[in-house]
Amino acid sequence: MDFSSFLTSLGTSFVIFLVLMFLFTWLSRKPGNSVVYYPNRILKGMDPCEGNSMTRNPFAWIREALSSSEEDVINMSGVDAAVYFVFVSTALGILVLAGLVLLPLLLPVAITDHSVKSDNTTSNGTFSDLDKLSMGHVEKKSPRLWAFLIATYWVSFAAYYLLWKAYKHVSDLRAAALMSPEVRDEQFAILVRDIPPPAEGQTRKEQVDSYFRAIYPDTFYRSMVVTNNKEVNKIWKELEGYRKKLARAEAIYEESKKSGKPEGTKPTSKIGFLGLFGKKVDSIEYYNEKINELVPKLDAEQKVTLREKQQASALVFFTSRVTAAAAAQSLHATMVDTWTVMDAPEPRQLIWNNLPKKFFERQIRQCVVYVFVALTIFFYMIPISFISAITTLSQLRKLLPFLKPIVDQNAIKTVLEAFLPQLALIIFLALLPKFLLFLSKAEGIPSESHAVRAASGKYFYFTVLNVFIGVTVGGTLFSTLKDIEKDPNSIVTLLATTLPANATFFLTYVALKFFVGYGLELSRIVPLIIYHLKRKYLCKTEAELKEAWSPGDLGYATRVPGDMLIITIVLCYSVIAPIIIPFGVLYFGIGWLVIRNQVLKVYVPSYESNGRMWPHMHTRIIAALMIYQVTMIGYFAVKEFYFTPILIPLPILSLIFAFVCSKKFYHFFQATALEVACRELKETPNMEIVFRSFVPPSLSAEKSDDDQFEDAKSQVSRATSFV
Amino acid sequence: MDFSSFLTSLGTSFVIFLVLMFLFTWLSRKPGNSVVYYPNRILKGMDPCEGNSMTRNPFAWIREALSSSEEDVINMSGVDAAVYFVFVSTALGILVLAGLVLLPLLLPVAITDHSVKSDNTTSNGTFSDLDKLSMGHVEKKSPRLWAFLIATYWVSFAAYYLLWKAYKHVSDLRAAALMSPEVRDEQFAILVRDIPPPAEGQTRKEQVDSYFRAIYPDTFYRSMVVTNNKEVNKIWKELEGYRKKLARAEAIYEESKKSGKPEGTKPTSKIGFLGLFGKKVDSIEYYNEKINELVPKLDAEQKVTLREKQQASALVFFTSRVTAAAAAQSLHATMVDTWTVMDAPEPRQLIWNNLPKKFFERQIRQCVVYVFVALTIFFYMIPISFISAITTLSQLRKLLPFLKPIVDQNAIKTVLEAFLPQLALIIFLALLPKFLLFLSKAEGIPSESHAVRAASGKYFYFTVLNVFIGVTVGGTLFSTLKDIEKDPNSIVTLLATTLPANATFFLTYVALKFFVGYGLELSRIVPLIIYHLKRKYLCKTEAELKEAWSPGDLGYATRVPGDMLIITIVLCYSVIAPIIIPFGVLYFGIGWLVIRNQVLKVYVPSYESNGRMWPHMHTRIIAALMIYQVTMIGYFAVKEFYFTPILIPLPILSLIFAFVCSKKFYHFFQATALEVACRELKETPNMEIVFRSFVPPSLSAEKSDDDQFEDAKSQVSRATSFV
Repeated sequence: MDFSSFLTSLGTSFVIFLVLMFLFTWLSRKPGNSVVYYPNRILKGMDPCEGNSMTRNPFAWIREALSSSEEDVINMSGVDAAVYFVFVSTALGILVLAGLVLLPLLLPVAITDHSVKSDNTTSNGTFSDLDKLSMGHVEKKSPRLWAFLIATYWVSFAAYYLLWKAYKHVSDLRAAALMSPEVRDEQFAILVRDIPPPAEGQTRKEQVDSYFRAIYPDTFYRSMVVTNNKEVNKIWKELEGYRKKLARAEAIYEESKKSGKPEGTKPTSKIGFLGLFGKKVDSIEYYNEKINELVPKLDAEQKVTLREKQQASALVFFTSRVTAAAAAQSLHATMVDTWTVMDAPEPRQLIWNNLPKKFFERQIRQCVVYVFVALTIFFYMIPISFISAITTLSQLRKLLPFLKPIVDQNAIKTVLEAFLPQLALIIFLALLPKFLLFLSKAEGIPSESHAVRAASGKYFYFTVLNVFIGVTVGGTLFSTLKDIEKDPNSIVTLLATTLPANATFFLTYVALKFFVGYGLELSRIVPLIIYHLKRKYLCKTEAELKEAWSPGDLGYATRVPGDMLIITIVLCYSVIAPIIIPFGVLYFGIGWLVIRNQVLKVYVPSYESNGRMWPHMHTRIIAALMIYQVTMIGYFAVKEFYFTPILIPLPILSLIFAFVCSKKFYHFFQATALEVACRELKETPNMEIVFRSFVPPSLSAEKSDDDQFEDAKSQVSRATSFV
Repeated sequence: MDFSSFLTSLGTSFVIFLVLMFLFTWLSRKPGNSVVYYPNRILKGMDPCEGNSMTRNPFAWIREALSSSEEDVINMSGVDAAVYFVFVSTALGILVLAGLVLLPLLLPVAITDHSVKSDNTTSNGTFSDLDKLSMGHVEKKSPRLWAFLIATYWVSFAAYYLLWKAYKHVSDLRAAALMSPEVRDEQFAILVRDIPPPAEGQTRKEQVDSYFRAIYPDTFYRSMVVTNNKEVNKIWKELEGYRKKLARAEAIYEESKKSGKPEGTKPTSKIGFLGLFGKKVDSIEYYNEKINELVPKLDAEQKVTLREKQQASALVFFTSRVTAAAAAQSLHATMVDTWTVMDAPEPRQLIWNNLPKKFFERQIRQCVVYVFVALTIFFYMIPISFISAITTLSQLRKLLPFLKPIVDQNAIKTVLEAFLPQLALIIFLALLPKFLLFLSKAEGIPSESHAVRAASGKYFYFTVLNVFIGVTVGGTLFSTLKDIEKDPNSIVTLLATTLPANATFFLTYVALKFFVGYGLELSRIVPLIIYHLKRKYLCKTEAELKEAWSPGDLGYATRVPGDMLIITIVLCYSVIAPIIIPFGVLYFGIGWLVIRNQVLKVYVPSYESNGRMWPHMHTRIIAALMIYQVTMIGYFAVKEFYFTPILIPLPILSLIFAFVCSKKFYHFFQATALEVACRELKETPNMEIVFRSFVPPSLSAEKSDDDQFEDAKSQVSRATSFV
């Protein structure tokens, strides 16, 4: 790739971005599309056209994003979204600070060194014009390297400073959210797991109640024993399905009245496999019949579940925030693997199935999952080549003989042969986040947000190891594996020598990512098309329509690792090829604007973890910083610079910084500080509502039949003191 | 050393033991010695001659020790002593179980193998008769090694089984102690450290009170701000010193009245340096004068200290055990390095000076101490050789020229030259425990018992690394250091090859240790002589006499590492030379009896940590077990046994066992489980007494002048609910 083709690629991406942006301006002004472009506002009951977002000015959304405050973000999308912006602005800040010093300092130093005949421009599409701007252009042992050494320190200290400020800020955000005077249900509950078997003749409920009433005589309110809801959930889902179908059938019937005959056509459906075979029946009648059949069945199953399917886990409710917060942090039993407690997650993010999992079962599951993920990361080529092997044409012909006539045509054959392996790779990579989320849930994690964090961490290591180090070191890694085994330090040298050659690849990668990626994000072309298709051909009822435009959440599990990869790449190249810094700045700058817009208007958070994502991000930024520092040590060593050891304190400093931060801030992200929990509430909480909010929908009785809960849930305690 | 000389040494030790035991029987029957042999009983106000300990039967004490129950031990010396017995009996149990199988299984297998011409009996005093009983006698690659392999597994599983039972038992002991219905002062208090600077115009006391009253409105009782007591302690010590001297002078005066002239001789003393120079004054008058001078000074200094020397640390008292236990485990501040809390230690074991040390200061101190200890362990020869270099005669002559005439005499010269380095080594080793305790306290640990545990852990690593591995591998280690650097695994092989050669050395060591060591322990010859000397020549008052026979505590800091060393040695040799097992059994068996006697009658515990020592012992027994397992793998490899890899799961199993134990039991040894703290108390605690018990003696006002505490301590809260 020469310089002009690089510029072409850059230009194309930019044009795509502009086109998508104007598309966005045009499409978002159409009122019919407002459910795609302003769903968050609509769901919050606000006017979608609030502000001047409907003007013809294509940059109005930018002005709006810039003028929005952190408070707006918290109000619209919660603390987690605000923390994501802290993360993006911290990354942006580090790169801006780095760029301000590195660009004017290093570019002239590199470009004016004429002593090198650019002898390492041969490989992987590096081209001479850009190469002159990089550290590779500086002669070995040259005193000019001092400038690069100082730059390495500058970037690190800029990162420490901004990370420290950010951690403090996020800590304050979290404190403010937790001490809010609003009643938040989960702040009055704790999750108890690993309850030992109850004594003879005692029910689970009695056991839990007597245990906690003895310890908290004044503030214990009630307990809710976790039940095995598999059966009841199945019936409930079936029932809900029939209700939806009934609503749909009724809507079709209404429509047919209007359009066709005045008496209308009763819709019919077949009751066999997939609605394609079997007897034809009147849909409305059939569904009503089914519903009438299922309602008593659900009722009966609910009773059975509450009475007989109690598990060794419970939610315990307190009338005081402070007691709940302290109880969640205290050891309750002398055998540490029984009566384990933790903060109750929000009701909506409880992973109900994981609650009754036993202590050591969770430990073993975690170990197994870690081993599995490590194997996936290190040998991810193996499943891919396995899939590729299956998906070769000859294999396919054998396995699915009916494809033969199609596959044997020459044109199709060529295309398939070229794309099948890539297709397999793409599908595998697209499935990976879901797979990692599945694995994280299999660990026995009790809350959705925690599972997302766990999956995000796994994905980060996957991308850094495979995309970054994989692409950089590439094939050479395996051929030199023997050298590495002999001398593990050689991987640093290897990384250092191959890094500069790949600068252009990553430059293009970053540019593509922000122009096209954020363009698509902003314009929401894909959801728009899907919505309109669904509206036209599938959706008949209001509920179905609402489902069609429901925007989902920000998707931290894949978004954060993606950003992390960019940070890692830009940091690692920041000193070697400072020209990458403006691209990084653009990535996070445009990202900030686009996501700000999306968070305020589009995405609806599916949970609130009060910023627990931050320590996770913080640690990984430091990990990226350390990769950068170690790489730089290696690269300076390759340049045979005598003063390279001056850089050795840097990774140690990073470790100390990480240690100090974790000691100073981290514990508050695991537990609620009591000084925060003891703040006054606006009103004394209605404990009944708090309690009800945790009842899963499949168990909440239709006809508010309170008594049936008393089988599994405890009596209201006599205490009435509120904090 | 041949077999007969080994037997001679064994016999001599045994005779010494018998002599000391009869000496004990004879001496302990004299009523004048009862304060040396029964101080614990006397201090508890019991009859020293209770039971039949005064009979002529020399084995009466054994019967008494055997018939005593664990409850007796707890009543007489607390839970810590009982836990020490659990440790000793677990060690004993492991060795007995090992011996029962290994002796009848392995000895015949080894002795009937005639194929080896005992080719490794040359070195370090190994002798052929014992060698025939060891694994070294078995041919390489012989199928007879299977027996040894099975034995290795047997010992490990016996250890796991007994350790598991012991941990459970100790956990129960701790729970029983913590849930006792007696009011224990420290259960109502927490220790708060790292209090941030108070707001402008607010005193520390107000700050602490308002902070905790907001969080615990119902159960907060009062707080005691930690003060800088250096000055007040100095005055108090001076005052106490003069009081003692006054009492002594009065006693001398009384005595002189009886013995000499009826009007008596007033004792005089010189007031100059060390009482040797200066003006002669009437002692009684002088001391009275001094006391009268110091009392108002102390009063004034107490007021100043309480008002102006308040530090960033406090003890906070609650009216409820549960609240105190939960508060000690909960995060209080959003900045984790402020308002750090922990269980309050007993008042008597508070290390007052360490309380105000800052969070990160403690971290840094800990790091520095660890580095220091590691250096001491690995390079302990350096200070010794340094001392030796200084203490050579020529050096001494130079440094202390006045010694010349003595040193130059030939006989003295020879003796000194021979003994000076050894003397230096002995002094260094004797000072080491004190030095390690000093280092542990320098870490900023707030309680005596914790410091003892920390010192004990350090001493364990010192003895195992230096005595055991040092003696075994000896000089060869340094010559083969290069091999080790190339291949770190070779240290295992090295250890394995040199172990059998040193079997006899350790056999003799263990025998010496139990016969002579426990003989001296039981007979208490040294404390007896010191007591009688003091009584005759120094002590004049009752208080001085009491001090002279005060027995001290069990001395866990050195005793436990000593026992650990024996366990490590015996375990490591158990399969290689099973003949060591009976010696180990004797060590722990006699140890159990002797220490049981001492604990019931002699030693007075100086603190009670409710068995917190156990996890520490447990971990180190497992460490010893792993050294044994790894050594065995190495030794089997040296024997070129094909099935050696069968042993590889063993150390992994040990790790898993340690992990499971720590997950199941350990947390309860760090914190008080709430189900334990919520037990009913016998009586509602008198909070004023609880509070007073924590006031250091130098600050407790003589004339119960309550008001002055109000400066630094808070008002009694209005709450009166007790648990």
